Amino acid sequence: MSRSRVYLDYNATAPLLPAARDAMMQALDLPGNPSSVHREGRATRALIDKARRQVADLVGADSSGVVFTSGATEAAATVLTPRFKMGKADLAIGHLYVGAADHPCVLAGGRFGKDRTTTIGVDGNGQIDTDALDRLLTNHDRQAGLPMVCLTLANNETGILQPVEKAAAIVKNHGGVLVVDAVQAVGRIPIDMEALGTDFLFLSSHKIGGPNGVGALVCAGEIMMPEPLIPGGGQEKGHRSGTENPAAIAGFGAAAEQLHGETIAYRERVSALRDRLETALLKICPDCVFYGARIPRLANTIFFAVPDLKAETAQIAFDLEGIAVSAGSACSSGKVGPSHVLAAMGYDADLGGIRVSLGAGTTDADIEAFLTAFERICSKRMPQPAAT
Amino acid sequence: MSRSRVYLDYNATAPLLPAARDAMMQALDLPGNPSSVHREGRATRALIDKARRQVADLVGADSSGVVFTSGATEAAATVLTPRFKMGKADLAIGHLYVGAADHPCVLAGGRFGKDRTTTIGVDGNGQIDTDALDRLLTNHDRQAGLPMVCLTLANNETGILQPVEKAAAIVKNHGGVLVVDAVQAVGRIPIDMEALGTDFLFLSSHKIGGPNGVGALVCAGEIMMPEPLIPGGGQEKGHRSGTENPAAIAGFGAAAEQLHGETIAYRERVSALRDRLETALLKICPDCVFYGARIPRLANTIFFAVPDLKAETAQIAFDLEGIAVSAGSACSSGKVGPSHVLAAMGYDADLGGIRVSLGAGTTDADIEAFLTAFERICSKRMPQPAAT
Repeated sequence: MSRSRVYLDYNATAPLLPAARDAMMQALDLPGNPSSVHREGRATRALIDKARRQVADLVGADSSGVVFTSGATEAAATVLTPRFKMGKADLAIGHLYVGAADHPCVLAGGRFGKDRTTTIGVDGNGQIDTDALDRLLTNHDRQAGLPMVCLTLANNETGILQPVEKAAAIVKNHGGVLVVDAVQAVGRIPIDMEALGTDFLFLSSHKIGGPNGVGALVCAGEIMMPEPLIPGGGQEKGHRSGTENPAAIAGFGAAAEQLHGETIAYRERVSALRDRLETALLKICPDCVFYGARIPRLANTIFFAVPDLKAETAQIAFDLEGIAVSAGSACSSGKVGPSHVLAAMGYDADLGGIRVSLGAGTTDADIEAFLTAFERICSKRMPQPAAT
Repeated sequence: MSRSRVYLDYNATAPLLPAARDAMMQALDLPGNPSSVHREGRATRALIDKARRQVADLVGADSSGVVFTSGATEAAATVLTPRFKMGKADLAIGHLYVGAADHPCVLAGGRFGKDRTTTIGVDGNGQIDTDALDRLLTNHDRQAGLPMVCLTLANNETGILQPVEKAAAIVKNHGGVLVVDAVQAVGRIPIDMEALGTDFLFLSSHKIGGPNGVGALVCAGEIMMPEPLIPGGGQEKGHRSGTENPAAIAGFGAAAEQLHGETIAYRERVSALRDRLETALLKICPDCVFYGARIPRLANTIFFAVPDLKAETAQIAFDLEGIAVSAGSACSSGKVGPSHVLAAMGYDADLGGIRVSLGAGTTDADIEAFLTAFERICSKRMPQPAAT
């Protein structure tokens, strides 16, 4: 099969941007450990400092608040912990509250563990129940420490945006700590940490066209910091040890810089492609269901179901047609199972959803190819036996 | 200064091997999340599976025992934990014993914390006191759980090899769990996990000519496993969550494969360079002190002091001469301080040591350039005021 492939799975991993690739290449050709004081070490250190500013600028943060990690999952495991320091004093966090449709790395509860983590329900639109959040925080037992709330700005499966600013006001009102998972939102909508009102947010490079293996925990200040998850040589001002990855960090920085300048234009272009795609999908299959269609969501994400066509079956059919899309999220190492996101929203999770996620490299031709394939798949559609 | 640089700091970070670079480039050009089931996902998954075999082969392990991490420091933080699982049952580890000259990521004690970590002294040759280890384990209180011992196979500053096989017999005799830090040893001496008698060892890619940002925890079996440090999407069979880094892992695998075939030849070639260097150093400066000269050590590492010349001063002078060497280790983000390794060996840690570490790319011309610079630096040497 020599036909070129169409990649519409940006929410799983976005293809590497040329600017990120170039930045990586430069770094790979420099030998040197960023902690070494010789010229080679200083040159790699300079790449990291530059990237720290680039990443900070993308979310309106100060570069001193950026802690590079190996990815968003590590950043979540770092910040979701009962043990904080306020300056040199211990600061206890008693309990963690997370959204029911959040990513598995948030639902796992980090160092709280599942027994000290409570999920907050979402409504049929996938949005957090802010009244429930308020009630939970009102009943929070402060004896064990402050409450921490972690919310996902944009859901990875549906693209649905959470009312984070409203939630932030509630969390502040209860004297809690707010953490925002901005992995899927960053670069797709403008983000300003102060305007969001969050204490922490975390990011992933490979979702925005940077390389895999790098992410960041971004802190609104440096006064209140989590105990390190990975102790050792004291890199990242002691917040995260282990020799830094200059090539990946430089690539992440370059991608962040490019997105920072292009977020608005990107959103307009991708919205137009999305609208065209959804209109055409409905023409081909009028009984398609678009999840989250009527509420604020990312412009790049279309999550839909076709009655009598299981999403996993459709995903394989698209793959054979040369088109990469996803059935739910890509996590969990090939595990196939019902979507916890759809279940939380009250849908039939067994039917699942087909996730089409667009990005900077998506073209009109890609949309055409997708629609042609969809038409072919629908024409062969047979009613599936109901799950038992 | 357009003169080409001489890089003799392989123990900090080895320059990327061409084979590793090529493997990375291939992976970077593949979009795809290894957990996605579409063709792009499966292609990146295949790269990871291949690398897993390559890394396992380098240390005589089974590929099913290799858990990729973001580096050796994360691998140490993962395995150094009181909470293990034996199958589905909990297995408690009560206390951690580490070598006094070990790396900061081991001395930090991982999830034991410093209060549940005891250091075992080393003798003037930098080798672990195996009688002290035996006494410590005899007195270990098994009520809280099994003892865990972590030893460094080859020290990062001195290159001194530990009597790991002897220590392994003692640990087994006491029913303990052994972890070996093989970061500096791997690829420089042949390693066979079973012959070493260890339960776990951990590795770093960027010390062997692979890329930064990847390492591995290698497990002798999968029966007894640490609780995950980073929970979430369930990658790496649940032992380490977070989207994998296919490019870095593929580069690590390629470096491992190359070293596996070349370890013996490498050692011979590098030994010859080292012997030549040491002989010439002594001619230039007869009062040089070589740390660990009389005991088994890595062929690539020369750690020495020149009376009346502080190592940090010498390191800067070498840098100005175009030569990258290290004063002690590269860790701790540019922190300058006395070497805990020399202190543990009973030396004057303030004098420090100049670490010259050779590698696959080191040439005769590099050695010549180093010696010329050393001669120039020594000729300018002035007695330094003693530290107060």
